[in-house]
Amino acid sequence: MKRPWAGQVEKPPEELIPRYDPRNPLCPGNTRANGEVNPSYDSTFVFENDFPALQPDAPDPGSDQHPLFQSKAARGVCKVMCFHPWSDVTLPLMKKEEIIKVIDKWAEILEELGATYPWVQIFENKGAMMGCSNPHPHCQVWASSFLPNEPAVSDRCQRAYHQKNGEPLLVQYAKQEAEKKERVVVENSDWLVVVPYWATWPYQTLLLPRRHILRINELTAEERDSLAAIMTQLLTKYDNLFEVSFPYSMGWHGAPTGPHLKEDNSHWQLHAHYYPPLLRSATVKKFMVGYEMLAQEQRDLTPEQVTHFALYSSLLLLCVLQY
Amino acid sequence: MKRPWAGQVEKPPEELIPRYDPRNPLCPGNTRANGEVNPSYDSTFVFENDFPALQPDAPDPGSDQHPLFQSKAARGVCKVMCFHPWSDVTLPLMKKEEIIKVIDKWAEILEELGATYPWVQIFENKGAMMGCSNPHPHCQVWASSFLPNEPAVSDRCQRAYHQKNGEPLLVQYAKQEAEKKERVVVENSDWLVVVPYWATWPYQTLLLPRRHILRINELTAEERDSLAAIMTQLLTKYDNLFEVSFPYSMGWHGAPTGPHLKEDNSHWQLHAHYYPPLLRSATVKKFMVGYEMLAQEQRDLTPEQVTHFALYSSLLLLCVLQY
Ligand SMILES: O=P(O)(O)O[C@H]1O[C@H](CO)[C@@H](O)[C@H](O)[C@H]1O
Ligand SMILES: O=P(O)(O)O[C@H]1O[C@H](CO)[C@@H](O)[C@H](O)[C@H]1O
Repeated sequence: MKRPWAGQVEKPPEELIPRYDPRNPLCPGNTRANGEVNPSYDSTFVFENDFPALQPDAPDPGSDQHPLFQSKAARGVCKVMCFHPWSDVTLPLMKKEEIIKVIDKWAEILEELGATYPWVQIFENKGAMMGCSNPHPHCQVWASSFLPNEPAVSDRCQRAYHQKNGEPLLVQYAKQEAEKKERVVVENSDWLVVVPYWATWPYQTLLLPRRHILRINELTAEERDSLAAIMTQLLTKYDNLFEVSFPYSMGWHGAPTGPHLKEDNSHWQLHAHYYPPLLRSATVKKFMVGYEMLAQEQRDLTPEQVTHFALYSSLLLLCVLQY
Repeated sequence: MKRPWAGQVEKPPEELIPRYDPRNPLCPGNTRANGEVNPSYDSTFVFENDFPALQPDAPDPGSDQHPLFQSKAARGVCKVMCFHPWSDVTLPLMKKEEIIKVIDKWAEILEELGATYPWVQIFENKGAMMGCSNPHPHCQVWASSFLPNEPAVSDRCQRAYHQKNGEPLLVQYAKQEAEKKERVVVENSDWLVVVPYWATWPYQTLLLPRRHILRINELTAEERDSLAAIMTQLLTKYDNLFEVSFPYSMGWHGAPTGPHLKEDNSHWQLHAHYYPPLLRSATVKKFMVGYEMLAQEQRDLTPEQVTHFALYSSLLLLCVLQY
């Protein structure tokens, strides 16, 4: 962190996003690339991605005989979910009731696509720095015919821990963190947000329920309410940290679905990962490059050092509120 | 690839890098952050990183009793290696004899640090887009007291393949690719560059020797000569692709060192990875974000589609040469 920085400096995000832009394909009433017209939606709005990476009828690529040249079709569907009819809001600026509608829709989509697909990845790329190509508040849902690499590792590790210790890894972890309090960013009666012990991105966080929950559709009405509340708190702290609409990629991980619905998945615990790229300021990010790509991810700050962003940003909030 | 792109656009790299900048700590004769004065070097120049991520005497962090809260000291050294006294050159603009001196120095450093450290990571972050904080042509060498994650996976997979098939994975792979010719970017009698079958970055390449070689210090004088030649060809093709000094992170992987020098490492094959971030043009990169971070890396183009960059750029080169 003491190195002089003469490297790349990011553009601060665009300030003036119009509430409604007639050329934005995500706004209510507008026409999308495939000619479809969006309804004049007033809450969430879900549609099939017009440029999907996964398709239900992807052809089989056909494999070579050789063991090193094996491939398989990756089939699935890609959906886009707008959070709100306005382009100039983000989750932390939305009302609690509006965020609850987003959570309800997440649960609904997981149930719908999870009926057949083994994995349903709900994720949000927020901000141009995280490859987001449209400023309208939205997330994506990609459901696949296979268990992708990251959840496969997560499944393996949670299963091994559960078999050895008789308790789900992340249930035990949340209890320990709630006791230690060294890495807790914010908490309420149902949820806990920590900078995980193994974090690699500087301000990475992990959002965990206290109760053992396999999938997002199992959340009670009270838990959806307290989830909306803690998301607002976390995202406000992020925005306050460098006084910028904080970029990140986030997503939900829960027990696999489709054919896995019938299996024992009690080693799983629902959780969300937040991966924000910023390191020093609104314009200087952490680069996961040479050493990280070729050898191992390395941190510039310990998780305990950055947990204090919770403190600083509460102070900032107070100042803002006094005006 | 057909999606309209309204996302982040990168700044094209700075055009006017002075040959000598009195404030650049990597230039010959200049004073660095720790007060040391660089010699007036006229070839390569190696020094200890003034802001090292790894230190030989890192204190033991002390672990918790709990199995989920275990940590260990990561010890090591970080060196910086300037390729050339001039700031306004890059490897493909250097003379073959100058590049051979870089290769000789890589071999020398691997031997020196590899005498005790189990892993010596030689890597180059090229361009501001890849987190490079200084335009002077240079690479880094981080030696560690442990085998990092990426080489640990590589060791495991190469070992398993060798045990099962009686031939090193990457030796067999190079033979297959040389025969198939579908993904070959450039080759000579000692070396082969392919867009690997499993590539995730659009223009990712893998540089492989044809002969079975465990570590870079085993290269013969002829192999160093032909390596310098093929590096120049590959990097020129990269620069021609979008007519920009091509950003990338690259690095060498070979058999582990230190205590592993005495073991049988015949499953290993020396190779270099090139990970360039660009996707569509000099200013639009591939974002490895939400789905990639949370589920699995996904490509926008097949390796076979992009292999043709070799062709296009040879044409471009011809045009340039005709002027
Ligand atoms: O050491 P540098 O070039 O200053 O820093 C760069 O490379 C390092 C090793 O890949 C990364 O950890 C840094 O994030 C990056 O900015
Ligand atoms: O789908 P989008 O938002 O247009 O695209 C973004 O997210 C995708 C999924 O993480 C990535 O593959 C793309 O590189 C990124 O630009």
